[in-house]
Amino acid sequence: MATKNKKYVYSFEEGNKDMKEILGGKGANLAEMKSLGINVPPGFTITTEACRLYYEDGKKINSEVKRQTDLRLAELEKKMGKKLGDANDPLLVSVRSGAASSMPGMMDTILNLGLNDKSVVGLAEKTGNARFAWDSYRRLMQMFGSVVMEMEHSDFEHILETVKDTKGAKYDTDLTAEDLKEIVTKYKAKIKSSKGVEFPQDPKNQMYMSVNAVFNSWNNFRAIKYREINNIKGLIGTAVNIQAMVFGNLGDTSGTGVCFTRNQSTGEAKFYGEYLMNAQGEDVVAGIRTPLPVSALQKQFPKIYKELVDTCNKVEKHYKDMQDMEFTIEEGKLYILQARNGKRTAAAAVRIAVEMVKEKVLTVEKALLRIDPNQLNQLLHKQFDPISRDKAEVIAQGLPASPGAAVGEVVFTAEEAFEKTKSGVDVILVRTETSPEDIQGMFSSKGILTARGGMTSHAAVVARGMGKCCVAGCSDIIIDEKAKILTIKSKNIVIKEGGFISLDGSTGKVYAGKINTQDPVLSGNFGTLMSWADKFRKIGVRTNADTPHDAKVARGFGAEGIGLCRTEHMFFEGERIKAIREMILAGNLEARKKALSKLYPYQKGDFAGLFREMSGLSVTIRLLDAPLHEFLPKEKKDIEELSKEMKVDVKTLNSKIEDLHEFNPMLGHRGCRLAITYPEIYDMQVMAIIDAAIEVTKGIGGKKVAGVKPEIMIPIVATSKEFTILKDRAINIVETRIKESKIKIDYKIGTMIEVPRAALVADKIVEAGAEFFSFGTNDLTQMGIGLSRDDAGKFLKEYVAQDIFANDPFEVLDQEGVGELIRIAIKKGRSIKKDLKVGICGEHGGEPKTVEFCHREGFTYVSCSPFRVPIARLAAAQAVVREMAKKS
Amino acid sequence: MATKNKKYVYSFEEGNKDMKEILGGKGANLAEMKSLGINVPPGFTITTEACRLYYEDGKKINSEVKRQTDLRLAELEKKMGKKLGDANDPLLVSVRSGAASSMPGMMDTILNLGLNDKSVVGLAEKTGNARFAWDSYRRLMQMFGSVVMEMEHSDFEHILETVKDTKGAKYDTDLTAEDLKEIVTKYKAKIKSSKGVEFPQDPKNQMYMSVNAVFNSWNNFRAIKYREINNIKGLIGTAVNIQAMVFGNLGDTSGTGVCFTRNQSTGEAKFYGEYLMNAQGEDVVAGIRTPLPVSALQKQFPKIYKELVDTCNKVEKHYKDMQDMEFTIEEGKLYILQARNGKRTAAAAVRIAVEMVKEKVLTVEKALLRIDPNQLNQLLHKQFDPISRDKAEVIAQGLPASPGAAVGEVVFTAEEAFEKTKSGVDVILVRTETSPEDIQGMFSSKGILTARGGMTSHAAVVARGMGKCCVAGCSDIIIDEKAKILTIKSKNIVIKEGGFISLDGSTGKVYAGKINTQDPVLSGNFGTLMSWADKFRKIGVRTNADTPHDAKVARGFGAEGIGLCRTEHMFFEGERIKAIREMILAGNLEARKKALSKLYPYQKGDFAGLFREMSGLSVTIRLLDAPLHEFLPKEKKDIEELSKEMKVDVKTLNSKIEDLHEFNPMLGHRGCRLAITYPEIYDMQVMAIIDAAIEVTKGIGGKKVAGVKPEIMIPIVATSKEFTILKDRAINIVETRIKESKIKIDYKIGTMIEVPRAALVADKIVEAGAEFFSFGTNDLTQMGIGLSRDDAGKFLKEYVAQDIFANDPFEVLDQEGVGELIRIAIKKGRSIKKDLKVGICGEHGGEPKTVEFCHREGFTYVSCSPFRVPIARLAAAQAVVREMAKKS
Repeated sequence: MATKNKKYVYSFEEGNKDMKEILGGKGANLAEMKSLGINVPPGFTITTEACRLYYEDGKKINSEVKRQTDLRLAELEKKMGKKLGDANDPLLVSVRSGAASSMPGMMDTILNLGLNDKSVVGLAEKTGNARFAWDSYRRLMQMFGSVVMEMEHSDFEHILETVKDTKGAKYDTDLTAEDLKEIVTKYKAKIKSSKGVEFPQDPKNQMYMSVNAVFNSWNNFRAIKYREINNIKGLIGTAVNIQAMVFGNLGDTSGTGVCFTRNQSTGEAKFYGEYLMNAQGEDVVAGIRTPLPVSALQKQFPKIYKELVDTCNKVEKHYKDMQDMEFTIEEGKLYILQARNGKRTAAAAVRIAVEMVKEKVLTVEKALLRIDPNQLNQLLHKQFDPISRDKAEVIAQGLPASPGAAVGEVVFTAEEAFEKTKSGVDVILVRTETSPEDIQGMFSSKGILTARGGMTSHAAVVARGMGKCCVAGCSDIIIDEKAKILTIKSKNIVIKEGGFISLDGSTGKVYAGKINTQDPVLSGNFGTLMSWADKFRKIGVRTNADTPHDAKVARGFGAEGIGLCRTEHMFFEGERIKAIREMILAGNLEARKKALSKLYPYQKGDFAGLFREMSGLSVTIRLLDAPLHEFLPKEKKDIEELSKEMKVDVKTLNSKIEDLHEFNPMLGHRGCRLAITYPEIYDMQVMAIIDAAIEVTKGIGGKKVAGVKPEIMIPIVATSKEFTILKDRAINIVETRIKESKIKIDYKIGTMIEVPRAALVADKIVEAGAEFFSFGTNDLTQMGIGLSRDDAGKFLKEYVAQDIFANDPFEVLDQEGVGELIRIAIKKGRSIKKDLKVGICGEHGGEPKTVEFCHREGFTYVSCSPFRVPIARLAAAQAVVREMAKKS
Repeated sequence: MATKNKKYVYSFEEGNKDMKEILGGKGANLAEMKSLGINVPPGFTITTEACRLYYEDGKKINSEVKRQTDLRLAELEKKMGKKLGDANDPLLVSVRSGAASSMPGMMDTILNLGLNDKSVVGLAEKTGNARFAWDSYRRLMQMFGSVVMEMEHSDFEHILETVKDTKGAKYDTDLTAEDLKEIVTKYKAKIKSSKGVEFPQDPKNQMYMSVNAVFNSWNNFRAIKYREINNIKGLIGTAVNIQAMVFGNLGDTSGTGVCFTRNQSTGEAKFYGEYLMNAQGEDVVAGIRTPLPVSALQKQFPKIYKELVDTCNKVEKHYKDMQDMEFTIEEGKLYILQARNGKRTAAAAVRIAVEMVKEKVLTVEKALLRIDPNQLNQLLHKQFDPISRDKAEVIAQGLPASPGAAVGEVVFTAEEAFEKTKSGVDVILVRTETSPEDIQGMFSSKGILTARGGMTSHAAVVARGMGKCCVAGCSDIIIDEKAKILTIKSKNIVIKEGGFISLDGSTGKVYAGKINTQDPVLSGNFGTLMSWADKFRKIGVRTNADTPHDAKVARGFGAEGIGLCRTEHMFFEGERIKAIREMILAGNLEARKKALSKLYPYQKGDFAGLFREMSGLSVTIRLLDAPLHEFLPKEKKDIEELSKEMKVDVKTLNSKIEDLHEFNPMLGHRGCRLAITYPEIYDMQVMAIIDAAIEVTKGIGGKKVAGVKPEIMIPIVATSKEFTILKDRAINIVETRIKESKIKIDYKIGTMIEVPRAALVADKIVEAGAEFFSFGTNDLTQMGIGLSRDDAGKFLKEYVAQDIFANDPFEVLDQEGVGELIRIAIKKGRSIKKDLKVGICGEHGGEPKTVEFCHREGFTYVSCSPFRVPIARLAAAQAVVREMAKKS
C-alpha cells in the first residue's frame, strides 16, 4: 500500500550520498554531485520503495508513484524548456536502474526515450543533424524492443546487418540518415509482426513501460544470481533514474569519455582516461575508432580539459577516494554523467591509501579502513597476467580454496608430482581428494586441483598453509586415475597426464593450457600500511605452521609466534609412517613404546627447527589430534604392500582397519581420547618438545637460541578430568627433564576448545590448570552447529542463499551460535584466571570479520596460515579503528 | 601421614550407623546394634582412613594405628576376661573387611585368630571339646594360609581329602580330634615347605598380618573389578572389624542361622529363616546337613526364639526396613553377628514399602524413596525362573539393552522371524545389527540378539519401545547369515537356525537352550505405589511411541501423552518404502510430490490411530528426521532387487547411493535440513497430521474423539531461520485445512533442541514462534560432547572407569556439560515465553537421575519408552520428596 504522504520520487536536487538505501547508488551519487554544483544533466529518481510497492501491488506501478513522477517530469520539462517527445524540440530522457549495491550490467537501461515518428523529425531539424536523429530513434527502438518488449536482440541485429550489406556499409557509421530511416521502418514492422502491437508512439507511455521494465529487471534471473553470488542481501528493490539526455555526437564540439583521478592498476596519482569526439558512450566501448588519451583533450579544448580536471579533483576531494567518472561534452558544454569510487588492484589500493595520507586527504585510520583485507591476497601470491588470462578458456569452476595462480602439467598422484618436479617440470596435482600421504607431492606441485571437498578440506587447509594455489571441490571434473585422464563432461573435454592447465586459486577457475603469470611484489607502501596496522591493532597475530619453512615465511609476514603446529602432518614422511603403523599394530604397551621411541628423534628435530625459527616467540604445539585410522592405508594395493613391509598378514591388517573404522570419525577416538587410551603417545611427544626446547636453548645441534617458549596444547578436551590426567603426566615429564637439564624453560600447558562441552565447562578446565585456550573453530563449528564440513557442501549453498546463514560458517565464523560458545568459554575461563591467554587457531583465524569478532571478545591473539598473516594484521587494526569510530 | 590426635580405631560402643564412611557398612551397623542394646560379640573397628594411610605409607600399618589398636585390644581382653591366644583360656577373634559400600565376597575374612599350638590345647580343655578346638585351629590355618600367606587353597584341600580317604571319612564331620591334629601337623609342614616360614605362633602377629591382608584385599583384582562394574567410586579404603569369636558348634545348646524379617521374594510380612544346631556358619552354607526352618526353633528353644524374634523386630523397627540377619547361639546365649537391609525382588520391595506405610512404620515419602525405580523393570517384564536359570549355561555376555526374558529358536533374518512366528513358533532374531527394515521381524520375535551396537543402537531403542527383550552388542558371537549359524568362538559353540537360546535382557546374558519364564504380575501394591508417586510428582510423564499399540501400552502404564512419535519408522513397511524410494530417485519436484502423495494416506492413518489412543492428551509428532540414505538398501543383492522393482538401472542406483553417502552422517543432511532442500516432504507430513486430526475429531473412519492435540515438532533445528521457514509453511497448510474443515484443532508447533547451537539461540527460536522445546538428548549428547554413540563404545568404558564421566553419558545425562546446554536453552527460551513447554524425548527421559534433573530444571514433562513410564513416574516423585527433604 502506498502512503499518500510518502515521498517516492526525488529530484536530483533533493537527494544526497547518504540516501543510497532509497535512491540507489547511482541516484544518490547524481544528487550528491548536483549539490557540489557539478554540471549533471537534470533528472529525478524513483525510489527503491516504489519498487517494493510495485511488487506488493502485483507488478503494477502505484498510482501515487505515478502522480509524483508526473509532477517531477513536469518540473524537468520546465527546467529544460522542452517537452518530452515534443514534435518540434523534444526532451529526450534515459531510464536507468540503480540499486543500493552496485550490480553492474545486471539490470536494464533505456536511452533516447521520447522519440517517435514526429519528434524524430523535430530533433533532426532542431539539431540540423538528421543522421543523428534517426540513429537515436533506431537505437531507442532496438533497446526498447529487446528490454521492454522482450524481443530477441538478434531480431534487430539481423535487420541492421541486412541493410548494411545492401548498402555496402562496413560500419554503422557508414549508414546515412536515409538508410537509418529504412531500418526504423523495418524495425517497426518486425515489432508489429513479433508482438502484435505497434512500437508505442506516446512518449509517456514509453517512459512508464521502461520504468516497469527496470522494476521487472530487479528480479530477472541474472540479477537474482548476481545477488546470490555476491551475497547481496536485505535490499528492497532498485531505484529508477530518469534523466535528460545529453549528446556527445552532435558534431565536432561534442564528445564523450571516461576518466580516473588515479591509476587503477598502479595507484599513481596521475589523472588519466580516454575520450572520443562526436561520439556516444556505446561508440567508445564498440572500439570502432580508437579513443584518445584524455591528455589530448588538453590540446584540443584546454578550457574544457581544465574544467574536467577541476571537476574530477573536486569530486575526489569530496569523496576522499579515487574516482571513476563518465563525461559528455555537448556542443562545448561539459556534463558529468556518473562518478563513483574507482575499482582498483590491491597494489593500487595500498598506494592510493598511503599517498592520500601523505597528501593529508585521509587520516591513517581512514586509510586503514580503505583496503579490503582479503584483497591483500592479490599482493601476496602470483597472479595471472590479465590479458593472457582473458584469452584462455575456462574449462571448470571449483572453490577458490587457496589464492594464487598456477600453471603446469597435469599429474594424478603425489608420487608422480614429486618425481616430475625433480626433473624440473612444473606440475598441477589433480586428485579426487588429497590425504595426508600426499603432502610431499602437494609441496612439489605448483597447484592442486581436487574434485571433492570444501574450503576446509585437507587439500584446502594444507595448500593455504603452504601458500600454494588450490582449487578444491571442482565437481565438474571426473578423474580416472588408472587411465590417467581428467574429463570435463559438460564440455566434452579430456585432458591426459602431461597436458597443461592453469588454476586461479583466488576465483576457483580452471583454464585450459598455459597462462602467463606475474610474481607478487611487496612495495614500500605495503610496509607502511602494515606498520600503521600494527600501531593500531591490539590483538596478536600468530601463524599456523608445521614446518620451519612455513614458520620462516610467516615470521617474514609479521607473525608473532606459532598459534598452531599440527603434529600429525609430521608423521607421514618415510620412516615415520612406518613407526606409527608399527605402533598401531603393536599388541601391547611395550611394543607401542618401542615404536614410539623411533618417532621421538624425528619429533624432537621438528620442534627444534620451529623453536629456532621462532626464537623469542611462543610456539603452540598441538599433541596428536588425528584418529589412528588416518595412518593406515585404505586401498587394497596399499594394504597388500604394507602387509609385506610389516610382515603382518592382510587379514590381520584388514581386521585392524575394520576395528578402527568409525561411523562418525569427526566424533571419534582421537585427540586426547586416544591419549587417555594410549598415554604413551603424548608422553613421547611431550618429551620431544621439552628435550628440543632444552637442546635449542643449550645450543646442542646448532647455535644457542634465547627465548624458547613452547606451549603444549591438548586437543579434543571435553572434560576437565581429561585435561587433569594428561596435564599431570605432561608436567611430570617436563619437570623431570627441566630438573635434569638445569635450564629454565618458559613453557605453558593449555587446551584447544573445540568440543562444545569444553566451552561449557571452561571454568573447570582452568581450575584444572589450563594456562591458555585456543579455539579450534573448525571443529567447534562442526559440533556446535552439527555440520560435517565434508558433507555440508551439498546443502550449505542453499542455506546461504536462503539467508539461514549469512555466510558459509566454515569460512566466516558463526558469531551468533558458535560465537556464543566462545563468549561463554572466555567468560567462564577468565572468571577463574583473569589473564587467561585466549587464541583462535581454526581456519577462521585469518578471516577479517572473525578477526574483528576476536578483537571484540578480548582474544589475546588470532592465528592463521602464513599468507593470511598480513590480512589478519590489517583486519585487527580495522577492528580497532571501527571501534574508536563507534565510541567517538 | 598419621595424625596423633586422630582417632583411627573405634570400639563398637563408639560408633553408629551414620559413620559408614569411616567405619564401613559392617562396622557402623555393629556399632548401631550395640547402641540398641543388642547382644553383639564385642569388638572394635579400624577405620577406612587407616586403610588410606596404609597405602600412603607404602603398604605399612602406621604406628599410630597400631598403638590405638593395641589399646582397643587390651580393652576387649579386659571385657571378655580372656587374653588373645592365652594358653589356658584363649580369646579368639575374627578379622573382617567392611567398606562403606557393600562388596560381598570381594575382600577377605579370617576367623579363629589367636589359636596356636598352645592355646588350642587350652581351648580344648576349657570347652571340653577337643574336636572343636582342633577343627578351629585347622580352619584358621587354612584361611590364614590362603588369605594372608597367599598359598593355594587346593594345597590344604588336598591334605584334607587325603586324610579323609585314609580314615574312610565321608564328611569333614566324620574326622576325629586326632585326625584333625594330624591334619594340623601336615598343614604346618606344607606352609613351611611352600613359604619357607612357620605358621606364626604369636597371636598378635597373626592379627596384624590379617589386618594387613584385609587392607591389601581392598586393591586386589576382583575388588577393583567389582567397584568398576558396580560403579563404586570415591571410597578411600576398607575398614577392618576385629571381633571376639562366638561359637555355634560348642554342643547341642549352640547353633547358628540366618533370618529375614519379611519374605525376600514376595515381601510378605512373615519372619522366616533357617538354622542348624551345633554348627558354624560354613556348615549351613556347605549343605551337609539340611537346615531347619526357623519356626522349629520355637519348639526347641522357645525362649531363644522369642529373643531372636524380638531382636529382629527391634532392628527392623529401628532401621525401618526389612532385615537380613545372622545369629549364633553359644551355649544357650543368643548373639547377633550381622544385620543389614535385606536384598529383595522388585515385587517384595513394592509390597514391603506399601505395607510399611500401612503399618505406619514409613511415611509415604519414605516409602517412595525405598524403591530403586530401575528395579521396576523386573515387574514389567517376563523374568526367568531363577532355579531353571541357574541350571542353564551362560554362553555369551552382551549389553542389557532391553529388559525381560525371552526363549526361542534362533533365526537370522527378519523375514524368517515373521514367517516362523506365523506358524506359532517362538523365535529369537539374531542379527549383526538391525536396521529399520527389520522392524516387522523384530516385532514378531520374542527377543533380539545383536552382535554390534550399544545401548542406544537401533535394536536397543526399538526393542525398548516395544518392551521386547534385547541383548545388544554381544561381541562374543559371530553370525554367518548365509550358512545360518551362530558361533561363540571362545566357547567353541555352534548354534544352527532352529536351535534354542534364552536371553536375559536385564543382565545381557545369553543362555543355551530353553529356560522357564515367569510372567509379570502387577499387584495392587504396585498400583498404590504409583498413585502415591503421581500425587507427589510435579513433572508430566509422556511416552515415546510410534504405533497405536505402543501408545495403548504406555497409556496403560500411566503415560500422559506422546512426547515423541518418530515418523521415519513408519516409512519402512511394504508399499511405503517403495514410495519413499521413488521420491528419493525422482528427478524433479513434480515427481517427488507424486511419490509423496502415495505416502500421505498411510501417514494420515498412522496419526489417526495415535490420536484415537491418546484422546484428550498431547501427541508430539516429529517430522522426518532420518537422512535419505537410510531408506536405500546397502547390500548388492538388495540393490539389484530394487533396480528391477523400480526399473532403474543399478549404476544409477549406485550413483544415487554414493551421492547420498556421508562421512559423518550424524552431522549430515537430515531433519529440517532435508526439509529446507525438499520442503514438500514436511508439507505432506503436516497435511497428514492435520487431516488426521480433523477426521478423528469429526469421527470420519471411526467414532468421534474429543481433544485431539497434535504437536508438530521440527527436528535438527540449529537456527531460528530454519524454524521460521518451515513453521510458516506448516502453519499455512494447517490453517488452510482448519478453515476448510470448520473445526477447531488445538495444535502447537515446536522444535527439538538437539543441536548445541539451537540451545544457544533458544531465545531467537522462541521469538520465531516455537511453542515448545523437546530436548533430544541423544543427539545433544553426541554433538555437545563430540561423541558418536556408534563408535564411542570402544573407549567410553575406560572413560567411566577413570571417572572422566561418572556414567556412560548415553545412559545417564551428563548434567554438567550437556545439562548446561539445557539450562541455557530453558533460560533463554523462557526469557521470551515464560510458560514455554519444555520436555525431553531422548533415551535419557526414563532414566531416574535424569528425571530428577528434569524436575529440578523446571521441565514440563519427560518422555520415555512405554515400559519405562512407571519408572519415570516413581523417579519424578522421588525427586520431589528429596527436594522437600533438602528444604526442610
